[in-house]
Amino acid sequence: MDQPSVQLSHRIQGVAGSAIRALFKHSARPDVISFAGGNPGSFALPDQQMASLAQQLLKDQGKVLLQYGQTEGYAPLLDLLPGYIADALGAQVSRENLLITTGSMQGLDLLLKVLTNPGDVVLTESPVFLGALQAMHLFQTKVVPVPCDEDGMDMEALERLMQQHKPKLLYTIPTFQNPTGHTLSLGRRQHVAHLAARYGVVVAEDDPYHQLRYDGSPLPTIKTFDTEGWVVLLGSFSKIISPGLRVGFMAGPPALLERCGVCKQCSDVHTANLNQALVAAFLQQGLLAPHVHSLCQRYGSRRDAMLDALAGVGGISHYTRPQGGLFVFAELAPGLKAEPLFHHALQQGVAFVPGEHFYAEGGHTNTLRLNFSNADEDTISRGIGILAQCLNGLQ
Amino acid sequence: MDQPSVQLSHRIQGVAGSAIRALFKHSARPDVISFAGGNPGSFALPDQQMASLAQQLLKDQGKVLLQYGQTEGYAPLLDLLPGYIADALGAQVSRENLLITTGSMQGLDLLLKVLTNPGDVVLTESPVFLGALQAMHLFQTKVVPVPCDEDGMDMEALERLMQQHKPKLLYTIPTFQNPTGHTLSLGRRQHVAHLAARYGVVVAEDDPYHQLRYDGSPLPTIKTFDTEGWVVLLGSFSKIISPGLRVGFMAGPPALLERCGVCKQCSDVHTANLNQALVAAFLQQGLLAPHVHSLCQRYGSRRDAMLDALAGVGGISHYTRPQGGLFVFAELAPGLKAEPLFHHALQQGVAFVPGEHFYAEGGHTNTLRLNFSNADEDTISRGIGILAQCLNGLQ
Repeated sequence: MDQPSVQLSHRIQGVAGSAIRALFKHSARPDVISFAGGNPGSFALPDQQMASLAQQLLKDQGKVLLQYGQTEGYAPLLDLLPGYIADALGAQVSRENLLITTGSMQGLDLLLKVLTNPGDVVLTESPVFLGALQAMHLFQTKVVPVPCDEDGMDMEALERLMQQHKPKLLYTIPTFQNPTGHTLSLGRRQHVAHLAARYGVVVAEDDPYHQLRYDGSPLPTIKTFDTEGWVVLLGSFSKIISPGLRVGFMAGPPALLERCGVCKQCSDVHTANLNQALVAAFLQQGLLAPHVHSLCQRYGSRRDAMLDALAGVGGISHYTRPQGGLFVFAELAPGLKAEPLFHHALQQGVAFVPGEHFYAEGGHTNTLRLNFSNADEDTISRGIGILAQCLNGLQ
Repeated sequence: MDQPSVQLSHRIQGVAGSAIRALFKHSARPDVISFAGGNPGSFALPDQQMASLAQQLLKDQGKVLLQYGQTEGYAPLLDLLPGYIADALGAQVSRENLLITTGSMQGLDLLLKVLTNPGDVVLTESPVFLGALQAMHLFQTKVVPVPCDEDGMDMEALERLMQQHKPKLLYTIPTFQNPTGHTLSLGRRQHVAHLAARYGVVVAEDDPYHQLRYDGSPLPTIKTFDTEGWVVLLGSFSKIISPGLRVGFMAGPPALLERCGVCKQCSDVHTANLNQALVAAFLQQGLLAPHVHSLCQRYGSRRDAMLDALAGVGGISHYTRPQGGLFVFAELAPGLKAEPLFHHALQQGVAFVPGEHFYAEGGHTNTLRLNFSNADEDTISRGIGILAQCLNGLQ
């Protein structure tokens, strides 16, 4: 029953499936130690709390929750978000600055829809989250990488690229970036907000890992320094409550969000009410703060286990030391490539993501992304040990 | 904090918000009798059943449900759908022909993404579901209406338009169409499948009302007659279980659905697992058949109440008599317009949707869509009575 000759759109031609999601199929094998993906650890998913919240919510408000909802979001969650955003992310927004999304990925999809035409330039860190790159390609935008160091994007380069390309959008993950784990410094955050207003570039600030900080002091979002409404904060509950619920939000200027809302009507109409109500109840009952505290303790210990294990590995020339988030990014010694290592390691029962997929410009075949949230400390040591043996075999 | 001068994409310029969703804000007023919207009646939402299913599912499988899921869908729902589709809709599909969507609206969004370039022609019934029209405009396609009668699309006209325009897509709601309530006849269903294969046109068969039949015999879907894989069935649980859960599906050729899946990864990654699991449990425990039976009895009685009430109304020259679904479509007598009636009726506490919004080609300012699922029989009689008085005042 397959179609012989259906003619596809220009936008979809040449867009591959997500390498990460294809890898899931391998890494989901129970015998594989997975450093691929960006899954929360199983302990981090509040299943028993959600079971009783869901029952209560459906019992008391099921007629509302199972009915159609408003595109902008479920009112009790919209009421709670300004307080949450101020406390957790340091930005002042009000209710009319909000649109609830079906995961924060949808926020980027909506911004690309509303802002870009084919051929328009989008600036972004390089390397960067593969799903975001894929969305940019789907909208036929020209992705121009911004050079980065350990403190995030290079500000001189960013200004020069804004002048040169007149981009529609800057996409950035400023805190514990995916895949590098790097964090944009405070001064640079202020400067990005300034440059956005100066050059008229909308900033998509994707900040899902913000609260997963294991060392150092919290930094305010770029949005905090946005006085003129050029920054759209993409928030997510995927990494701190549950990715399976698919609840995120956009915080930005009302006129722009109204247009995003029209696009959302034409896509999924609204985000499922029950899922929004579960997040609202979790916030409202004060369950999030202790939950995040416990996540940070355990994820911090897993990060330490990974950094300790990496310290002794021959064949890895460099790796990042993130203060939070879910990922370490590593470089192999000259002459070694991540792709053959990937296949060899998978045979030995260890999965990761070869880093080249995260680069818009390609190359960097000697890099790899290692996730540390989804395995316990012993498993991490064992997995990195297997990786070290595989590297030995390749040298 | 609003943006002074953000430059929007071509696709979003000129796309208005959905008139229906704007009307929700009026019609949600508790003092308004709403014949607008397409909401299930409150009785139709199985809140207590869902409360206990949700608790059980999260208690037993919460760690899976709250984690990331597969883009193609939650395995137990994918396992159940072929049997459901065969029983309820009459089409034979297998698991690799399926992609779960966040409501069936997302199915159209994904098809437009994968198939159309700006300027491509999409054929559709006229009048047709406003959300679908809006999605077509957002993708900058050229919408060409197919003339219809009481048995749905005119087959000679459809073939001529396929020859003339080489469309990428035909969008149709064959059963109890929105907004007319008309149903495509059996012979025409076969013929649409034949024409699609002959002219190489993908058919988006949107069939959310299929099971809401109050008279007459069920008809198989167009998909049932699709031997070559040109028909994509867009299915929905919004009208028979809950719209607030946002769970639908696409059934079509695997290669096309794989491309739709790539687009879905870049939009909402996957449909929320809990919501899919709730639908799967509802099907698996045999709760759907008795639920649909009860919906049909009560909705049928509400439809009868509306048709009875309309029988005596001066100023309405014609109205449809649907065998199922949620809507009656009416025409006002010469010289009367639906827009002033709408404003006058809303002041008197009755809402509906002026029909002109459903026509791609505009005009038809003397038509209106009346929903009968969301008010009980007495309220329907009272509401149509108020409408009759308003019409009197306008004549």
